[in-house]
Amino acid sequence: MLERKIIGCLEDIVGSEYVKTSEEDRVLYGYDATPFAPKTLADAVVFPSTADEVAEVVLLANQYRFPVVPRGAGSNLSGGARPIRGGVVLSTQRMAEIIEIDTDNLQARVQPGVVNRDLQLRAQQHGLFFAPDPQSLEFCTIGGNLAENAGGPRAVKYGVTRQHVLAIQAVLPTGGLARFGARTIKSVAGYDMVSLLVGSEGTLGVITEATLRLLPLPQTRSTLLVVFDKVEACARAVSKTLQAKVIPSALEFMDQNAIRCVEAYQPSGLPTGAEAILLVEVDGSNADVDESSKRVEKIMRSSQAAAVTRSTSPEHAQALWKARQAVGPSLARIGPIKVNEDVVVPLSRLAEAVSGIDAISKKYRLACACFGHVGDGNLHVNFLLNDNHPDLMERVEQAVGELFALVVSLQGSITGEHGVGTSKQPYLSLELGDVQMDAMLRVKQALDPLGVLNPGKIFPIDKPFDQGTVG
Amino acid sequence: MLERKIIGCLEDIVGSEYVKTSEEDRVLYGYDATPFAPKTLADAVVFPSTADEVAEVVLLANQYRFPVVPRGAGSNLSGGARPIRGGVVLSTQRMAEIIEIDTDNLQARVQPGVVNRDLQLRAQQHGLFFAPDPQSLEFCTIGGNLAENAGGPRAVKYGVTRQHVLAIQAVLPTGGLARFGARTIKSVAGYDMVSLLVGSEGTLGVITEATLRLLPLPQTRSTLLVVFDKVEACARAVSKTLQAKVIPSALEFMDQNAIRCVEAYQPSGLPTGAEAILLVEVDGSNADVDESSKRVEKIMRSSQAAAVTRSTSPEHAQALWKARQAVGPSLARIGPIKVNEDVVVPLSRLAEAVSGIDAISKKYRLACACFGHVGDGNLHVNFLLNDNHPDLMERVEQAVGELFALVVSLQGSITGEHGVGTSKQPYLSLELGDVQMDAMLRVKQALDPLGVLNPGKIFPIDKPFDQGTVG
Repeated sequence: MLERKIIGCLEDIVGSEYVKTSEEDRVLYGYDATPFAPKTLADAVVFPSTADEVAEVVLLANQYRFPVVPRGAGSNLSGGARPIRGGVVLSTQRMAEIIEIDTDNLQARVQPGVVNRDLQLRAQQHGLFFAPDPQSLEFCTIGGNLAENAGGPRAVKYGVTRQHVLAIQAVLPTGGLARFGARTIKSVAGYDMVSLLVGSEGTLGVITEATLRLLPLPQTRSTLLVVFDKVEACARAVSKTLQAKVIPSALEFMDQNAIRCVEAYQPSGLPTGAEAILLVEVDGSNADVDESSKRVEKIMRSSQAAAVTRSTSPEHAQALWKARQAVGPSLARIGPIKVNEDVVVPLSRLAEAVSGIDAISKKYRLACACFGHVGDGNLHVNFLLNDNHPDLMERVEQAVGELFALVVSLQGSITGEHGVGTSKQPYLSLELGDVQMDAMLRVKQALDPLGVLNPGKIFPIDKPFDQGTVG
Repeated sequence: MLERKIIGCLEDIVGSEYVKTSEEDRVLYGYDATPFAPKTLADAVVFPSTADEVAEVVLLANQYRFPVVPRGAGSNLSGGARPIRGGVVLSTQRMAEIIEIDTDNLQARVQPGVVNRDLQLRAQQHGLFFAPDPQSLEFCTIGGNLAENAGGPRAVKYGVTRQHVLAIQAVLPTGGLARFGARTIKSVAGYDMVSLLVGSEGTLGVITEATLRLLPLPQTRSTLLVVFDKVEACARAVSKTLQAKVIPSALEFMDQNAIRCVEAYQPSGLPTGAEAILLVEVDGSNADVDESSKRVEKIMRSSQAAAVTRSTSPEHAQALWKARQAVGPSLARIGPIKVNEDVVVPLSRLAEAVSGIDAISKKYRLACACFGHVGDGNLHVNFLLNDNHPDLMERVEQAVGELFALVVSLQGSITGEHGVGTSKQPYLSLELGDVQMDAMLRVKQALDPLGVLNPGKIFPIDKPFDQGTVG
């Protein structure tokens, strides 16, 4: 627990009503959406309202050496928002203002606690949108999106969060407050600190404001639901689409287990005998969308698709997407415990990845459902369990290890969107190698010599906190 | 000069015919395209042919503490490729292979010495292109493009170089060789080392291979040449174009002095009484380009454009672009000595920037021509001089200082494309501030504790090299 003196200092900074130390609050802000994470408790939760207050909290943490764990909506899936070493959880809840929708420069300036969906709604009023669309966008915050470099279905066409951040204001681990980047597409004045802080999972800075790039809303969208008897044909169809130089705005995949789960949970008329389905969305001008849809349909039919349905209206498109949205909740039908890994492979290796995953789940006798943003090679591999018996969990662990080795051998990545946090630490060096791990650790240690910002995340190594001062 | 022993070690690494120490070679590889740079001489020039050889050279530099200056085509404009502290110039000339055009994943894998134009030609054969198009693309190398995070006209629509780099192989300053990033759009395994190394001007790593994103070539392009009597009307027209949510693939500006230089150099029928012209290019599908061109034309006419000419064929478009391409060489007509700064401002501040620049050049009695990639706010401000008399140069220096203060006050950047190198060091902290400067220096020192990679670039502070071992 933090000493009473430190709590007093925190109260002086943010006001006593914005420092919470009750057990309820410490539990409430001590967890995130990560499965199988051990219970973690904050010592205190603080709710700063300005960047200066954030800086003062971080300065205090350097003085008394306690961990500071930045937190948005807590929807993190890899442990990033958990106070695994206690200390202070710093919630951005009170910094949730959309400061400006700048239609002259097609930019938004927001505080970190703004919910992604709220920004989308505001941008839409001006005919604009913010490209990053993580599946949690109804509740996740922009601060969290930036800290984790969130992806989403649209990344296949529009790229990931990092590519839509022009500038940030952030508090560095030693307490300095600064603006990074510029309000322009171009700027080469020194190192790209924006890209370094974005995706650093709260270990290199607390983002207190962001200037984001907005894009003009496309004139229209069209969705195609494509059914495949064979998963290999489906994988080839995905490659062929990109080879044909059609870049869809979304290209989502569900395997047979995912289809069956959905049909059991919310019957959507999907053929449960099919090995895979694709949902393909194209966006753009009316003329372009019409042409692209026709091309996609042709590619799919020539790739042995069993059926192709093209949306005839926005409502129809929404109905087609319903099945995809039901996947997550429906998986519990097979096994209430879900081990969800978000691996990525180059598109050309997709067929190998799918058959490799099948072989791994058979080898370890695990139920497995795959779905995901296949257009950018991002597959969500879900091992579905009925209980967490130690023997079963060991098989899962071995299967996950083989899965990661597989995607690394295919020149992919062990995590496309969810981050490393605590969950993927044991596997990180497998992908990065020693030279790169060493370089990242040097950067962390250079910017956070006392290790106060989100300690124990991404890298296992951290300086131990002095129990004398932390109390 | 490097000791004979060290030259011998270099010869052992790359072969004796690939270590040059003649005065001609030391001069030839000792300069780049930076104006007003004092003469700099390499001690030796090495031409490695593999990443392992690069790593061995850098390891040797750490052992004997001599500078290593990576060099592509030497077209740098801010001093980045100059061996200001002697040591070894490491040329990528022999590492110039396009390893793969991967049409399955829409990627290219190249060595650093590949010329941008050669990659473009190869990609075109597959209906693809590499978006970054610096004006030096006929001779600049991909390694240099990455090291400097090159821009170009197309950045307004497609972004800068960094956004098109998926993965790199690089030698770190302490000699470690590693692969960074993944061959996928998504990957959040640790910090974004790719973005950190790209744009680090050769101070954080030597890039030995790059995996680049290629895009489908647009079906068609169309160019509009727009003439304005008043520069303010022109600035407003640029803003209105983006507000109308048209994102051109290029949006180039020339002010009256630039127009007059071009007409004196290569008569192109431009109206020398006009205060500004815009060249607007839109690309995409035939239907889209037709619609966007019409919209741009309407916006221009409603913004008091004096004349709008739309290209009727690719040849016609090329003729319209000729004037823009002639700007650089033509400026010598006014003053043979050119001080070229590439500032950036947010689009909404363009009119303020243009009138501010006009006021500065009047105040210091300097001829000034402005042109550039105005669609992303990137203005090339050229002070044109007849001689380099000390009194005149002092006025230029003061004018440049005021120019940078102006763009920083408008929330822009002192350099959009050219980099900091040695040229912009005195002004860097003006834009970045102390906290950010300190953070960047920490990163540099953490990754390059002995300061061997391109010392004296971006930051003025470096460890002095031990004269005993460097000789």
